[in-house]
Amino acid sequence: MELLRARWAEGKSVCVGLDSDLGRLPKLGPGKGNPDETSRLAFNKAIVDATADLVCAYKPNTAFYEAQGASGIETLAATSAYIRERAPGVPIILDAKRADIGSTNEGYATFAFELLGADAITVHPYLGKEALKPFLERADKGVIVLARTSNPGSGELQDLELAGGEKLSLSVARRVANGWNDHGNCCLVAGGTYPGELAEIRARVGDLPILVPGVGAQGGDAAAVVRAGRDSKGQGLIINSSRGIIFASSGSDFAEAARRETQALDREIKAAVGER
Amino acid sequence: MELLRARWAEGKSVCVGLDSDLGRLPKLGPGKGNPDETSRLAFNKAIVDATADLVCAYKPNTAFYEAQGASGIETLAATSAYIRERAPGVPIILDAKRADIGSTNEGYATFAFELLGADAITVHPYLGKEALKPFLERADKGVIVLARTSNPGSGELQDLELAGGEKLSLSVARRVANGWNDHGNCCLVAGGTYPGELAEIRARVGDLPILVPGVGAQGGDAAAVVRAGRDSKGQGLIINSSRGIIFASSGSDFAEAARRETQALDREIKAAVGER
Repeated sequence: MELLRARWAEGKSVCVGLDSDLGRLPKLGPGKGNPDETSRLAFNKAIVDATADLVCAYKPNTAFYEAQGASGIETLAATSAYIRERAPGVPIILDAKRADIGSTNEGYATFAFELLGADAITVHPYLGKEALKPFLERADKGVIVLARTSNPGSGELQDLELAGGEKLSLSVARRVANGWNDHGNCCLVAGGTYPGELAEIRARVGDLPILVPGVGAQGGDAAAVVRAGRDSKGQGLIINSSRGIIFASSGSDFAEAARRETQALDREIKAAVGER
Repeated sequence: MELLRARWAEGKSVCVGLDSDLGRLPKLGPGKGNPDETSRLAFNKAIVDATADLVCAYKPNTAFYEAQGASGIETLAATSAYIRERAPGVPIILDAKRADIGSTNEGYATFAFELLGADAITVHPYLGKEALKPFLERADKGVIVLARTSNPGSGELQDLELAGGEKLSLSVARRVANGWNDHGNCCLVAGGTYPGELAEIRARVGDLPILVPGVGAQGGDAAAVVRAGRDSKGQGLIINSSRGIIFASSGSDFAEAARRETQALDREIKAAVGER
């Protein structure tokens, strides 16, 4: 939370999603062969070098690394170590969407916080607060709970109306803000593809930080996100773009292209904040 | 599903959870030093050797392997390969509780099905059917959706009453059985610690297979589970015990102890089925 607030104080709200799918990496290097873990790590380092001064967070998604098994996990760990070294004040959000029963979550917390040195992790809410204690009780780490996800079908469950008239996603958001946040380390996920729902969530959670995926390749509009989701200080958002930034160019200029896209998103956000 | 039905036809309903937490393994071998990945793999192999003829499935939980990073993932892959070789008809359920947006789930599906060779995976329902398509469309693989989990606080969200009067967990169960199961590859999770809720779920899902965690160390009663959860054929349950079986002894007789506990659970289940 401290790292995040320091970045917001610098006017930075862009989060770069390091969803470095091996199958989508540019073919680089002398042989220009198919990308492997060596080229993936080099790719991630180049993206970090090109964007470290612009962002409020990095968010690698575990799925793209797990798809290669142990070697992918090694690249994820090496990427985290590199961010720590190259961009020491920029928090690392492990987008892992984990959640199991309590004793099992201890294993996931070890993976995220000790092994990878992440500053925060995304989690599912379905098992309730009690199960999430191994995450929630880490007062030094952020716990980012899914409320409204960015995918087209997220409404199937998240829009269900509860007996009191509240939607499930809003009930989750309210619980996290008012019951799960004993250590002041909770955040929420609200997809940038649903600015209306983002605004409804913001209305219920005070200044709780909100991670907003879905801007860029998924079609979310950054200005609409800022208008719908900013907190009482005009901050409070971690606005993520993954593919829209890291795969902006498939050529050898991928890092410069990523910087340009990050700057463009940053300007768009600042313009919308300035409208206020 | 075919493997599972073949095991049920042999009267087998016990699933052994390979939650081989490195910190809880017996100290074995010449030096009797702290367990490492070599001893964990040997432990898992010995458990499989001791129980392969008794079980309907094995269920390693990813968290206990991820907690050691890349080397843990290698042990998980090697364990899966060993099960495939030593117990070829016994399905491997990867208890990973994953779920992200569609394009990201492809990475998790690759991890579970290609890399580890699992026959099924457990998933969260929160993002809806659309997001789960990379799992659901694998007609050759099982997709086991969390409906009611075994943890003490599972009711916080899962017991929420929807506007029509239905509980969230039952709405999830009904959706999975009637809308998500286009390829006949869906199952549900319903914790053995809540036989009442298990019975309510069974009443809504026909003969859909149900994975029941929470028997053994978590306190669920196998006979109550059978009475509450069996399908119209008196089958349909994957009754899991993890710690209660694999850590039945902390000495060098751990494998024999695991076999005895598996046999005891198997007898308990058969007696309850026989009551019918």
